Amino acid sequence: MTFPVVGMVGGGQLARMTHEAGIPLGIKFKLLSDTPQDSAAQVVGDVVIGDYRDLDTLRDFARGCDVITFDHEHVPTEHLRALEADGIPVRPGPDALVHAQDKGVMRAKLDEIGAPSPRHRIVTDPEDAVAFAAEAGGFPIILKTVRGGYDGKGVWFVRTPEDARDPFLAGVPVLAEEKVDFTRELAANIVRSPHGQAVAYPVVESRQVDGVCDTVIAPAPDLDGELAGQAQELALRIAKELGVVGHLAVELFETTDGRILVNELAMRPHNSGHWTQDGAITSQFANHVRAVLDLPLGDPRPRAPWTVMCNVLGGDYPDMYAAYLHCMARDPQLKIHMYGKDVKPGRKVGHVNTYGDDLDDVLERARHAAGYLRGTITE
Amino acid sequence: MTFPVVGMVGGGQLARMTHEAGIPLGIKFKLLSDTPQDSAAQVVGDVVIGDYRDLDTLRDFARGCDVITFDHEHVPTEHLRALEADGIPVRPGPDALVHAQDKGVMRAKLDEIGAPSPRHRIVTDPEDAVAFAAEAGGFPIILKTVRGGYDGKGVWFVRTPEDARDPFLAGVPVLAEEKVDFTRELAANIVRSPHGQAVAYPVVESRQVDGVCDTVIAPAPDLDGELAGQAQELALRIAKELGVVGHLAVELFETTDGRILVNELAMRPHNSGHWTQDGAITSQFANHVRAVLDLPLGDPRPRAPWTVMCNVLGGDYPDMYAAYLHCMARDPQLKIHMYGKDVKPGRKVGHVNTYGDDLDDVLERARHAAGYLRGTITE
Repeated sequence: MTFPVVGMVGGGQLARMTHEAGIPLGIKFKLLSDTPQDSAAQVVGDVVIGDYRDLDTLRDFARGCDVITFDHEHVPTEHLRALEADGIPVRPGPDALVHAQDKGVMRAKLDEIGAPSPRHRIVTDPEDAVAFAAEAGGFPIILKTVRGGYDGKGVWFVRTPEDARDPFLAGVPVLAEEKVDFTRELAANIVRSPHGQAVAYPVVESRQVDGVCDTVIAPAPDLDGELAGQAQELALRIAKELGVVGHLAVELFETTDGRILVNELAMRPHNSGHWTQDGAITSQFANHVRAVLDLPLGDPRPRAPWTVMCNVLGGDYPDMYAAYLHCMARDPQLKIHMYGKDVKPGRKVGHVNTYGDDLDDVLERARHAAGYLRGTITE
Repeated sequence: MTFPVVGMVGGGQLARMTHEAGIPLGIKFKLLSDTPQDSAAQVVGDVVIGDYRDLDTLRDFARGCDVITFDHEHVPTEHLRALEADGIPVRPGPDALVHAQDKGVMRAKLDEIGAPSPRHRIVTDPEDAVAFAAEAGGFPIILKTVRGGYDGKGVWFVRTPEDARDPFLAGVPVLAEEKVDFTRELAANIVRSPHGQAVAYPVVESRQVDGVCDTVIAPAPDLDGELAGQAQELALRIAKELGVVGHLAVELFETTDGRILVNELAMRPHNSGHWTQDGAITSQFANHVRAVLDLPLGDPRPRAPWTVMCNVLGGDYPDMYAAYLHCMARDPQLKIHMYGKDVKPGRKVGHVNTYGDDLDDVLERARHAAGYLRGTITE
């Protein structure tokens, strides 16, 4: 048996679902997890408990692996370079991953390759942020710490000069961006392999609530075909120029004047691709595994006219399992994906997928299930 | 968190794929496996290594579980009764499972409920087998040990009185059955829950090579609609009368004169249902988990006009992973399911699924991939 060992750094739900997708391939899956209670650590056979920020821990873990990939973007770049120097393939590699770790580096690179971004620049202090607002046509503006943010954390919607102070308190460089007039958010998800093969999933619409992804519709309804093609080409070009291996999510704004602008990049399976588990021929997780192993990629096309994903957030009732009875009985086609996490209000603890021919019906079913599991819908 | 713990006895590929299907439900999955190298033990987080034939081992294992289910039918009936006496739900229960463990008990029960079987009776010695042959219209006849057989083992195709000796050497009771004139083998697969809900999958055609399942076509091509309905009703009736909980496979002969006769029963996910992983809205594994937890069952309908499963047997080349390159590049829609087993000639080490609109194309793709992985097709 020469089946390879894929080493996954990070024990969150992305690692959990990547393991699930890797089981059919017969590969060996090894996990480096902070605690045995982490989402993925509950379901993976070969788990090392340790801190990915400690280079010795990371090196020991990597020694038994044929390739290393990630559940998150937080592994220090210098650690990744050390693993590469040890001869362990790291996918995506540090030179690519830095663009998902540092928003300043990301914006500079996108400018360099001519990819469309909101107006932006690094700002040095609150006064400089006010100066940027003047350059960008006035408040509101967006301030972001260049490292460490996700799901709305590390991002400030700044309406006044007073609002501009908080982002600088952490002592991390701050990126200022214009507040884009957008009609909706899209995501162009692609997967790229080391030998340069790439596949593009249909462009999806991503709806956020309070800065957290709430609903994803695949494909994005009423999206102009030419704009969809542009978005896919843009994602493929970014992946190639940045040397991405694995899944790349390019989060986009669709502007009121019909353009697309890059909002964020993520180089790992992404929430905007969870619909692929039940809605695409090959899921983002299966294709991520195939990519990091340099195997030919699977067909990314949809299996149904419409697929909808709704995230399940924790509500006031800790016993989400009790809600299964109603949800499963109401919709025998419903696909529940829970992460094994303790339910806390507002915490992402799972998602549901629905698919079918009629978008209104598919949306209603997903929303009902997500709301019922959370406890905001009770009938 | 009140997510339940499902205890799976047996570490084979059925347990492996049941774990895979259970991950999205957020349940906890605990495995009792003979060795850490067993197919499921490689990928499950919570594994107990022990011998299911030892009651103390079984009891210790079951103490941490909310329900016990099985990868195989070999757990002694008295052990299952002991677990039930300890208050652990066993699904399927011993009163049902005995019909899948003992072919003599199974035939007697099918006769009692009026389910159609080949002509049969228990025979006491080779001379009695010869007498049965005379009653059944002459040789050939089939002899089976009532316990312990699978995949052609424990089954003898008996052409002469001399052939009738071997089956009695093990000292196990022997069941004689007429050799049925059948055009093909079918399987009617259903899933039933403790509260009595049941779902029926489309009836499939199962093609055997050397007594081992080779190809499954879903749905069975050109099957008369009325006969398909009879087969589903028969499987549902058997499940109800025998008190089956979980997945029930009813393997059937379609006779040359247009009837169906029960060949075998299996009360667990079954090879004839592997197509459901990629071809049905809810897989047999997901529905088995839902059934043993008494959750509402998922939709069993197909997602494509045709789905074909081909088993992958070991060939002369131990490195099956190397064959992935060709198979995945040739057919980006191919679904490979490997079991993490060492490759030995003739051993079932995985299967592939294909689906689509055109049966000839779907069949060709599955056969090519299975043959290439085995090494019998090299281009």
